Amino acid sequence: MNETTPLNVPLQPDTQAEALPRRRFINTAALAGLGLGLAACNQKPDAAPAATPAAASAPPKAAAAAAADAAHLKPGQLDTYYGLWSGGHTGDVRVLGLPSGREIGRIPCFVPDALVGWGHTNESKKIMGTKADGSLRFTVGDTHHVHASYRDGNYDGRYAWVNDKINSRIARIRLDYFVCDKITKLPNVMGFHGIFPDKRDPVDTAINHTTRVFCGGEFAIPLPNSALEDHTKYRSLFSCVDAETMEVRWQVQIDGNCDLVATSYDGKLAAANQYNTEMGARYENMMSAERDACIFYNIARIEQAVKAGKFKTIGSSKVPVVDGTREANKDPKTALVGYVSVPKNPHGVNASPDGKYFICCGKLSPTATVIELTKVLDWFDGKLDKIDATIVAEVELGLGPLHTAFDGRGNAYTTLFLDSQVVKWNVDKAIAFHKGDKSAKYVVDRIDVHYQPGHINASQSETVAADGKYLCVGCKFSKDRFLPVGPMHAENEQIIDISGEKMVLLAEHPVRPEPHDFIFFKRELLKPKQVYNLDEFPLAVKDPKQAGVTRAGRKVTVRMTSQAPAFEPREFKLKRGDEVTIIWTNLDKIQDLTHGLAIPDYNINFITNPQETASVTFTADQVGVFWYYCTHFCHALHLEMRGRMIVEA
Amino acid sequence: MNETTPLNVPLQPDTQAEALPRRRFINTAALAGLGLGLAACNQKPDAAPAATPAAASAPPKAAAAAAADAAHLKPGQLDTYYGLWSGGHTGDVRVLGLPSGREIGRIPCFVPDALVGWGHTNESKKIMGTKADGSLRFTVGDTHHVHASYRDGNYDGRYAWVNDKINSRIARIRLDYFVCDKITKLPNVMGFHGIFPDKRDPVDTAINHTTRVFCGGEFAIPLPNSALEDHTKYRSLFSCVDAETMEVRWQVQIDGNCDLVATSYDGKLAAANQYNTEMGARYENMMSAERDACIFYNIARIEQAVKAGKFKTIGSSKVPVVDGTREANKDPKTALVGYVSVPKNPHGVNASPDGKYFICCGKLSPTATVIELTKVLDWFDGKLDKIDATIVAEVELGLGPLHTAFDGRGNAYTTLFLDSQVVKWNVDKAIAFHKGDKSAKYVVDRIDVHYQPGHINASQSETVAADGKYLCVGCKFSKDRFLPVGPMHAENEQIIDISGEKMVLLAEHPVRPEPHDFIFFKRELLKPKQVYNLDEFPLAVKDPKQAGVTRAGRKVTVRMTSQAPAFEPREFKLKRGDEVTIIWTNLDKIQDLTHGLAIPDYNINFITNPQETASVTFTADQVGVFWYYCTHFCHALHLEMRGRMIVEA
Repeated sequence: MNETTPLNVPLQPDTQAEALPRRRFINTAALAGLGLGLAACNQKPDAAPAATPAAASAPPKAAAAAAADAAHLKPGQLDTYYGLWSGGHTGDVRVLGLPSGREIGRIPCFVPDALVGWGHTNESKKIMGTKADGSLRFTVGDTHHVHASYRDGNYDGRYAWVNDKINSRIARIRLDYFVCDKITKLPNVMGFHGIFPDKRDPVDTAINHTTRVFCGGEFAIPLPNSALEDHTKYRSLFSCVDAETMEVRWQVQIDGNCDLVATSYDGKLAAANQYNTEMGARYENMMSAERDACIFYNIARIEQAVKAGKFKTIGSSKVPVVDGTREANKDPKTALVGYVSVPKNPHGVNASPDGKYFICCGKLSPTATVIELTKVLDWFDGKLDKIDATIVAEVELGLGPLHTAFDGRGNAYTTLFLDSQVVKWNVDKAIAFHKGDKSAKYVVDRIDVHYQPGHINASQSETVAADGKYLCVGCKFSKDRFLPVGPMHAENEQIIDISGEKMVLLAEHPVRPEPHDFIFFKRELLKPKQVYNLDEFPLAVKDPKQAGVTRAGRKVTVRMTSQAPAFEPREFKLKRGDEVTIIWTNLDKIQDLTHGLAIPDYNINFITNPQETASVTFTADQVGVFWYYCTHFCHALHLEMRGRMIVEA
Repeated sequence: MNETTPLNVPLQPDTQAEALPRRRFINTAALAGLGLGLAACNQKPDAAPAATPAAASAPPKAAAAAAADAAHLKPGQLDTYYGLWSGGHTGDVRVLGLPSGREIGRIPCFVPDALVGWGHTNESKKIMGTKADGSLRFTVGDTHHVHASYRDGNYDGRYAWVNDKINSRIARIRLDYFVCDKITKLPNVMGFHGIFPDKRDPVDTAINHTTRVFCGGEFAIPLPNSALEDHTKYRSLFSCVDAETMEVRWQVQIDGNCDLVATSYDGKLAAANQYNTEMGARYENMMSAERDACIFYNIARIEQAVKAGKFKTIGSSKVPVVDGTREANKDPKTALVGYVSVPKNPHGVNASPDGKYFICCGKLSPTATVIELTKVLDWFDGKLDKIDATIVAEVELGLGPLHTAFDGRGNAYTTLFLDSQVVKWNVDKAIAFHKGDKSAKYVVDRIDVHYQPGHINASQSETVAADGKYLCVGCKFSKDRFLPVGPMHAENEQIIDISGEKMVLLAEHPVRPEPHDFIFFKRELLKPKQVYNLDEFPLAVKDPKQAGVTRAGRKVTVRMTSQAPAFEPREFKLKRGDEVTIIWTNLDKIQDLTHGLAIPDYNINFITNPQETASVTFTADQVGVFWYYCTHFCHALHLEMRGRMIVEA
């Protein structure tokens, strides 16, 4: 029970409150202690009609046991959902099976990966991007949000996208092979945070699938970037990337910044929360305003403006940038964007699966704001006087609301970072409550999670097919939930059964820090391929007879094949100083028969999966015998699968 | 059931046998198809008295259910065992909680890690080793074996060690903070495979703890390395590393190679299996002999020889190398080493927890060979005529025996790679059978695993406190056990209850390729620290008041602190071309309050845990405003935790 756990809200170290139970602390010294100014909010958290937290702590025992069984698959039993998770600092995408919560794969994107040779092979270096000397331009990343391509409002199994916040890159994942195939760096953007694909075209109704990906720029900077110190002159950009070519189509210069991003099911709007409309440069100055904003982008109008040449470019970038500032968008009938006010430093914005609402979480306000899509469209059509009239509810949920998921039955599930809870609430009842029906009990249930939850998602929640079965919650602190492993703690991912009225906590899984956003969906939506097609690789060495060494001056090409338990050639010779390219095709055709190729002291190790080709280039700068060997267990004679690279002086 | 699964033995692609059920295939075309020459073995697999495999497929249902519950911990329930796993290509050590099988941490060693900044910070680069230009010497690794330090025959919670096979490096892990603190590259060794610490001193009985770590060199090479093509002149080295200083104390030049390594409980002997006594350069020539060897090292005598100056050095290495060739060690009374013959390409060698036996697995022979420690000591004392008289059993277990674990009750558990099984067998009964008692049923049980198991270990199996509760098995192929995720498959780690007569499969977990060896032991043996001590870091910035910029010519030092939600300084200025070192101390004291520090476009991201200090050095080569920000979720104002690095032209 949370009541007896150690304090789990990070505090200023000088606080005397560490010995206090968590809830009592939150209700007393917390607000001042956190310096959030929450006490000054108009909303009184205790005014909200709430289900008793005690109920969540004691779910029906039999139901809990039965539900827990569902998450504990028997050996050999397959999961029923795929999950795609951002990896965080590791710059990759995690693939999970659910409800078991098992990690069944990782897809390297922005950061080198010494297992597959990502950032080591010539093919992956080309995708990642290199400097003039051939070395990687970036070796760190910070992935936050993974979302997949849509058709008819559901995932179509083609692509997923993920952002790198540090270096403003967007990566695309092919969901047939589970590999990253393209990376684009956004020009003039720093702190690329929110990301969301569109779900259909805003104009052409025949295009009922994803063709654009929207990207929010969080940190305002000089445009173009210079050493300008006056931060009030900094600005942010919202970018549109072409889903197929991965080129940046256009950008919108705005006031304030972009945090999370969401899109409407009709393809007409994208939305981005703004937490620093004050344009402050220090945190104290980023939270002075009582309300910030959620900015809505009218995609069709923006693209008309670009077509009409109403844009500028910034620095050396050729990308058209339209004007999305408040000043330039006062007239709703011509506005490219609209700014809806939302309480104090909002964080997540999520589109409900019925297509009707965007829900913005308050973060420093204990509220969620419900904005109705048709009313936003009305505003753009000049039918609504004030844009804030698009707000159909603004209700209190608890302390630190961050993100919201949906069950397809009209309920929303919001993480409360400071309360370490998930609150289940009914959107219609919240609207009724906001309209004045104070008897409307919109809070359905609360459940304690462990601890400080950030992202949340439910099965199929971001699609028209939200099925309300499971909820996953990414908890930022794990503290006492797992055996101690030194100062760096795992994050804690918890899975909750939401099929009934009450939420039931099923299981929890530690994970290396730190995943952020994720999606999970029915397994039948993907059709992965488990063996590559030789013809997809232009350099493929299709027969061991083609294996061998060719030389053009100091440039040497080694064509290599593998078939367990042997590489071909079995040995080859080089001269010191040769520039060597090894092109290696794994000719094994059997599923799961991956080989690795390591060359000791030459800093080379990469794998090829069945029927895959990959290459590396290096200089033969050390004389001697170097046993290249298979690093991926393949066969009873795996240890014997090796050959000699002989480098002569 | 295995009977209906797809073929799970890697084959030559031209085989017609793919449609055959696995067992039938193994019994017919397999031996020829695999080209292993197993049919020529003297042993007939069907001659062994074996428990029926069907029994393993149908364990008592109630027992199975109860046991499975044990592995499925309830939320908030802590594991009872720690596991330390080699990470494989990722060059790190995985930390698991058992029996849940959850991964609770990873410890970067040989390969950069973009999460903690391993290979990015100055401190970690110093441990990893750099080239003249300051870049890392190696960025790939291939870890295989993790073993921990001993006291009184059990783990003492001080250290663990892990090897990098590719670049012949050994890393040490501090088990208080779960970090790598030292890495040593072994001179004149290629393919450093087996590794094992000693358990006490061979001479000084007061030293009843680990002071040495033994390392087996697998690939024979020219000594010193040159482009010598005649492979019959290549040799391998067995190395001894000092557990405290991590310096290489001495090496032994041997005939043949070293595969796995084990040590005796009395501290007197180390052992290494040899699979290529033929010294072949191609796999066909590595398996012509019917018997290879297990080589025993007499530690006290080797160290006497070194002391007496009876050694050479190789190339630029200063490490003393003694002569362990067969020719030089014919007289048992003066021999430094002894070669016990073992059937065809043995793989694992394991010391039984009663201190009596070394067990060598046949790999290409379906047998395990049991060698008695006291008899080996007798041989070194001249009391035994023939060294092979140390063999007290050589019994058939099944196809492809690789590694063996123990339950402390006299039973051994061996993985059968080709059979995809674990076989439980009784060592005393095997000895009786070998002696002539053909009624001795040494095989107790068999269980199918999925698929192609390599390493195996049991709870506390490598200590005097082997408790016979759980068995973990690392399966190299997972094939159809998890949702498909493209061509690269997860490995499959399975956990088995061994507390009863019959083994019961409890659960399975996918894992990123590819872990090899591992140990697991009772949680009370470790006492991790969860907050660092500021005084352990000489560069610590102990007060925010010390934060700021100092300049010496073009060398700039930025002293930085963090206390959620702010860095100090909040902004700082540089000039283009400055050589900048940021020294950053995380002053937060609360457990789990880790911060990250990223600098966009400067390829910098690393973390500091509570009370930790780390530093990075870079050149300020880009002009502009760069928002450094916290990448590790820390506080409700985490997104607002950022500052400006302003680089002027």
